[in-house]
Amino acid sequence: MASVITLLTDYGLEDGYVAACHGVIAGIAPQARVIDVCHLIPSGDVRRGAAVLAQTIPYLPPGIHIGAVDPGAGGARRAVAIEAGGRVFIGPDNGLLSWAVHASGGARLAYEIRNEKHFLRPASPTFPGRDVLSPVAGRLCGGLPLADLGPEVPVERLVVLPEPTSLLRDGSVEGEVVSVDRYGNTQLSIAAGDLYALGVRVGDTLGVWLGRRQLSLPYRETYAAVPPGELVAFADSAGLIAIAVNSGDAAQRLGLPPGAHVRLSPTP
Amino acid sequence: MASVITLLTDYGLEDGYVAACHGVIAGIAPQARVIDVCHLIPSGDVRRGAAVLAQTIPYLPPGIHIGAVDPGAGGARRAVAIEAGGRVFIGPDNGLLSWAVHASGGARLAYEIRNEKHFLRPASPTFPGRDVLSPVAGRLCGGLPLADLGPEVPVERLVVLPEPTSLLRDGSVEGEVVSVDRYGNTQLSIAAGDLYALGVRVGDTLGVWLGRRQLSLPYRETYAAVPPGELVAFADSAGLIAIAVNSGDAAQRLGLPPGAHVRLSPTP
Amino acid sequence: MASVITLLTDYGLEDGYVAACHGVIAGIAPQARVIDVCHLIPSGDVRRGAAVLAQTIPYLPPGIHIGAVDPGAGGARRAVAIEAGGRVFIGPDNGLLSWAVHASGGARLAYEIRNEKHFLRPASPTFPGRDVLSPVAGRLCGGLPLADLGPEVPVERLVVLPEPTSLLRDGSVEGEVVSVDRYGNTQLSIAAGDLYALGVRVGDTLGVWLGRRQLSLPYRETYAAVPPGELVAFADSAGLIAIAVNSGDAAQRLGLPPGAHVRLSPTP
Repeated sequence: MASVITLLTDYGLEDGYVAACHGVIAGIAPQARVIDVCHLIPSGDVRRGAAVLAQTIPYLPPGIHIGAVDPGAGGARRAVAIEAGGRVFIGPDNGLLSWAVHASGGARLAYEIRNEKHFLRPASPTFPGRDVLSPVAGRLCGGLPLADLGPEVPVERLVVLPEPTSLLRDGSVEGEVVSVDRYGNTQLSIAAGDLYALGVRVGDTLGVWLGRRQLSLPYRETYAAVPPGELVAFADSAGLIAIAVNSGDAAQRLGLPPGAHVRLSPTP
Repeated sequence: MASVITLLTDYGLEDGYVAACHGVIAGIAPQARVIDVCHLIPSGDVRRGAAVLAQTIPYLPPGIHIGAVDPGAGGARRAVAIEAGGRVFIGPDNGLLSWAVHASGGARLAYEIRNEKHFLRPASPTFPGRDVLSPVAGRLCGGLPLADLGPEVPVERLVVLPEPTSLLRDGSVEGEVVSVDRYGNTQLSIAAGDLYALGVRVGDTLGVWLGRRQLSLPYRETYAAVPPGELVAFADSAGLIAIAVNSGDAAQRLGLPPGAHVRLSPTP
Repeated sequence: MASVITLLTDYGLEDGYVAACHGVIAGIAPQARVIDVCHLIPSGDVRRGAAVLAQTIPYLPPGIHIGAVDPGAGGARRAVAIEAGGRVFIGPDNGLLSWAVHASGGARLAYEIRNEKHFLRPASPTFPGRDVLSPVAGRLCGGLPLADLGPEVPVERLVVLPEPTSLLRDGSVEGEVVSVDRYGNTQLSIAAGDLYALGVRVGDTLGVWLGRRQLSLPYRETYAAVPPGELVAFADSAGLIAIAVNSGDAAQRLGLPPGAHVRLSPTP
């Protein structure tokens, strides 16, 4: 069985919450290798959690992938286990896992996690990551069949987050800011392939519309291709278009929060 | 012997301090699994360190548990190794370990860590976590008997932090804010069992006195039982009463720092 | 071959970037033990990265040591693998590794990392940590000879950061603030041995010049030797002189950023 368990949460690093999950897993599946994907997802930000998980998953070995970001934790929301592309994702059925499942080839099978025999007891209603997801991950690692977790869920009934949109039309492509990283690089929902389809090539100048503002940016292979302090667009490490300032903070300079609308076009 | 070593410190994550401890352990006990409990304990905050360790310990496999939070590190304070409930706690004798030792069933044996043969040499007086506690943990993992560390310390001479108080009287229960987590949930020193003894049941309304202010809060199974933005009291994942705002920050809303006095009672 | 891989980056902990590196390594070298040295190096701060790596390296088991802090990542800068003291350092040839290489006894051999056969493909030009350094580290762990990475680089052609200076003259020693840690302790580029050479002994009073300001500080074994709130100088855990406030923040109190000039002398 899988020997890798990965953890993505919004628990932060200031408490022992993440360690409790590691401890529960180590007690049940001492042979498992645990990889922390991220624990600083902003509290309850399901879209950000989904984006980080989906962009990281291609680089993680197949295993049991826990996601625990759920503003309604402790409510009536069900937890699910989803098999996709040789991986198992477990977490709340709130869309958190949906982009990573899609990136892994789509859900093949899903089960509701309901069999309390596999939980810590008593399971706290407010900490399913520790009391439900961690022990279940450990047991799946040890060979527990998915079907033992609870009733099957038709995969078309799983909650799916709307993907960040991008739309090719009239010779331009529209999208939105998907995320802003630590450096202030803004990642757009626009794939490098869409720009290519519009005839834009590395070395060209790109027209950028941010609401009513219009800019012209160099389209380069990387931010280091422009002098420090200058704006640039490039295909980032996830294959999406990013707008950055070499050695600077583009999100702050341009006032571009996640969700902001952006349109790109070739400059004639 | 134990193959798990856990680490709780106030070293932060901006330096290589934690890595140095990991490295020393890996060099001496390459077979050990190291679990980071928390490294963001506020600098020198022994009570916060004690609370995080005690609340996490039930979920950690038995092992060697290092605690390194000591405003007087490098002074004359002795380091100790304490056996409790099949676990070994090592750290300064300043009370940091006392609540976790208590949660593990109480100290059975204790030794002063004084035998420099087991330290890195020269041991820096300002970094006992790296030079004393890490190598000692690695050697204990390898089978070194506790008695080799130094002279026995009578367990009743160990420094014990006063526990956060709670007092049942006159039909109400008084306590204090033990900690505030990343979400702004305030955890009280009042056990769910004490409210139960007063006749309070999930679904009831609770009277809450904060100094001169009085509130009525719904007592529910979890914060998700109230609409977003509303206050609620519930039994948290450690079995203690917490006051929270669903998808909000209760500590900020109510102005409740650690140590603040709180009284709870049934509402007739 | 080595079974330890260490990671120092400026990726931060808010994204899945570090996890992607862990995942790539785990896929190629599942047997390797990965130690995170630090991921909170300020973005692009090569000197800070070099200092943290050099001060931590003596406590890490020999292995493959990845450094990824490079304001010009994605530019034309070459990546190198450097053998020193039984360790292998890999990262950009921008001086980041140079102090740790020096602390390990100096470069014995170096190779440019150019053989794309060992990279992830396609390798993103903006994320060499994930696509170049991580897979190369995994393969070196599995026995790949260094010479397979690319052409040999004469060690005297490697980029070396200027070391923080210190100068003994006229009965005093001059240096600079190397780094400021989480506690506000300022570490100087002045070795404890230089003060010793000037006749300063623990227990003495030290003359300290900060630009035009002059102070007298107690020189003690550790900060705990003075009352809380008082300034003190001592030899820190790296063997360098530090100026600290017991339970306080010396960098803030004295206005001492990294790079600030400091002169120390015995007080008659």
